[in-house]
Amino acid sequence: MTMLEIIEKKKLHGELSREEIHFFAQAAAEKSVPDYQLAALLMAIRLNGMTDRETTDLTLEMRDSGDVADLSAIPGIKVDKHSTGGVGDTTTLVLTPLAAACGVPVAKISGRGLGHTGGTLDKLESIPGMKVAMSTDQFIRQVNEIGLVVAAQSGYLAPADKTLYALRDVTSTVDSLPLIISSIMSKKLASGVDAIVLDVKTGSGAIMHTLEDSKALAEGMVRVGRLAGKPMVALVTDMSQPLGTHVGNALEVKEAIDLLAGRAGGDLLEVSLGIGGWMLKLAGITETAEEGEARMREAIASGAGLQKLKDMIAAQGGNPAVCDDVKLLPQAAVIRTSVCGKAGYVQKMDTEALGLASQAMGAGRETMEDQLDYSVGYVLKVRLGDKVEADTPLVELHAKNEADAARAEAAIKAAIRIGPEPAEKPPLFYAIITE
Amino acid sequence: MTMLEIIEKKKLHGELSREEIHFFAQAAAEKSVPDYQLAALLMAIRLNGMTDRETTDLTLEMRDSGDVADLSAIPGIKVDKHSTGGVGDTTTLVLTPLAAACGVPVAKISGRGLGHTGGTLDKLESIPGMKVAMSTDQFIRQVNEIGLVVAAQSGYLAPADKTLYALRDVTSTVDSLPLIISSIMSKKLASGVDAIVLDVKTGSGAIMHTLEDSKALAEGMVRVGRLAGKPMVALVTDMSQPLGTHVGNALEVKEAIDLLAGRAGGDLLEVSLGIGGWMLKLAGITETAEEGEARMREAIASGAGLQKLKDMIAAQGGNPAVCDDVKLLPQAAVIRTSVCGKAGYVQKMDTEALGLASQAMGAGRETMEDQLDYSVGYVLKVRLGDKVEADTPLVELHAKNEADAARAEAAIKAAIRIGPEPAEKPPLFYAIITE
Repeated sequence: MTMLEIIEKKKLHGELSREEIHFFAQAAAEKSVPDYQLAALLMAIRLNGMTDRETTDLTLEMRDSGDVADLSAIPGIKVDKHSTGGVGDTTTLVLTPLAAACGVPVAKISGRGLGHTGGTLDKLESIPGMKVAMSTDQFIRQVNEIGLVVAAQSGYLAPADKTLYALRDVTSTVDSLPLIISSIMSKKLASGVDAIVLDVKTGSGAIMHTLEDSKALAEGMVRVGRLAGKPMVALVTDMSQPLGTHVGNALEVKEAIDLLAGRAGGDLLEVSLGIGGWMLKLAGITETAEEGEARMREAIASGAGLQKLKDMIAAQGGNPAVCDDVKLLPQAAVIRTSVCGKAGYVQKMDTEALGLASQAMGAGRETMEDQLDYSVGYVLKVRLGDKVEADTPLVELHAKNEADAARAEAAIKAAIRIGPEPAEKPPLFYAIITE
Repeated sequence: MTMLEIIEKKKLHGELSREEIHFFAQAAAEKSVPDYQLAALLMAIRLNGMTDRETTDLTLEMRDSGDVADLSAIPGIKVDKHSTGGVGDTTTLVLTPLAAACGVPVAKISGRGLGHTGGTLDKLESIPGMKVAMSTDQFIRQVNEIGLVVAAQSGYLAPADKTLYALRDVTSTVDSLPLIISSIMSKKLASGVDAIVLDVKTGSGAIMHTLEDSKALAEGMVRVGRLAGKPMVALVTDMSQPLGTHVGNALEVKEAIDLLAGRAGGDLLEVSLGIGGWMLKLAGITETAEEGEARMREAIASGAGLQKLKDMIAAQGGNPAVCDDVKLLPQAAVIRTSVCGKAGYVQKMDTEALGLASQAMGAGRETMEDQLDYSVGYVLKVRLGDKVEADTPLVELHAKNEADAARAEAAIKAAIRIGPEPAEKPPLFYAIITE
């Protein structure tokens, strides 16, 4: 078997065997074939597709290209959640403390932000003292002690995906369903959890812009999860505007704390509860997702959720007092508000552009080497469908300096269309895909 | 403009602009973008195709990525011929001396063999003393003095093609019409000739196995040639069996000499005259290709063709006496005949396998670094459609040693099907594509 034969087969619309997929996944992990051959194969997969069987095999072979975490030392059904990424998407920080407070052992591996989307690890690191790197032993001990950990990947998880993911980024092969599915699922399966709730975003800030593509991605991941033997649910949720009102690392932590403290509400809370409800059901704690959601609302009311977040912050070296006084989070030098400038209805948002505006302020990365400014970002004061006047506040900018604030203000105004026609608020949930 | 944007556009079935094609052809010539991006683009082109306009632009941009030869110091209409390559395909050595004898200035750049197909330069180098490398000045002088030169490329012709051709070989993107057309035509146009006759092979030993694909290639090249302003004709000719009876470097030179001396005939002669007739017509020497063919037959009868070959060999440092005594060509250590072994009809040949059998004897290369043995090869004693008995000679093997002869004998027997049903002789010419 040679790499050339595998490329040839996929080029001619053939179905690759498990052995052929093993061959190139191993080659990607070991970097034992030239990048140009992997690039040609990725483009052939992007254009000619893969069957569910091939996608599942690729997922499993990428999972097995490195270590597979053993979480058997943690009692109970470990349920993970994964979001395909968006802007102002802080669901992890809201729902994992609530799920843990309700008895789900939460052992979560998270990532960093790149491009227009934020990353949970960056947000956590905006909490003074907070550490996200730890050994597997520490990771397991923390779940057993307090029921909740959110940390960076340790060890050698899915190295084949690492190689292919980097190549996809520079060969225009990111937007391939089998490649997206196998990339996400290989890492999730390698993390050793028992069940997974997926949050697949749809809209202008999501990896998939159309509902059709988003549903296809959600369905594909659920099928692959089932073929790999993991209970799974996927929710297709809205990303036609930032999910939370806060965008930026410390700002998003603040919003999560406000929601857990019960002093705020909104779309971020509702989506977090929707996803979390399914986590409780898959963990066998409640009969239905609705009951799970109700249990989580109780954990807000009782303060048990916020206490879990405090426990986790303390366990990971951070200052838990931020949960009582959000002013202890990093604060930007310039904080000022900008108004809508005209009357009308908020009709449309270019959510990707809004994410890039936050990135340009220093809240996100263009390349993995960029340093972040945790304090910067903005708070959107309007939602899609809102009726506004010229003097209605549009956005509260948190910037390093006035020049950055002005640039962000212009970018945000350009990304939000206000017009005379009334506009509908989008639904939060578009589809629930179960097995 | 970035390479990523160009890949993205072709991936989404877009038509690349002249500027975009210029960008990546220059990048290929200068090796200023990573191979993996070129590989992804090549696969996208292979799978999504190119319009005639794109193919023509790619041809012209690859031509202009290096030097374009100036043959204006040679009076007359310089007509080149190009074959897409096959087994026992010695047309260049037969027809160029005849065309030159009839007054066509022949300034031919040839290549070396790779894989199952032979190369004209290798065949010429089997003539003791013969040189194929020369300066552009020498090249032009030789055409003006004797009317005929066949030599290796000098200078920096189509470097973009060099990069892309090497990548195509290792990324399964050889079989792409726009890439084949632009590769061949860019080099032909860079060689500075005025008109071109193409010999597009079809069948089991050709780059295109089906007549449909071969015609599409021929038509595509003629279209691109016309768009580039060059008079062109393409003939689609048979490669369902080796064209000549002789396969191997010195053996093919011997066959060419035998044909030019008028002491042999057969398919190689007829195809050479068919192509050559069109060369005379495009050169304006005859009114029709048929008249051209007749003129070339006269050049055989008069000995003028063989004399031209002698003149060229002498001018390039070789021993012209080989034309009078073919025994002066390298001779193999083992020469023996193998018989058919069963009675019936010659029904089918795997011509590619026959080419590989010759390569394995030492007559061809697997990689460009391999050294050749000019003496080895074989003479096929049967043609498709022949009725044979068990003791009819099948092949005369010319090998380094008996072990090589035995291996070649087995490979050749496996590649030729003899069965009880009568079989038709294939036509030599399938199509003539003119503007």
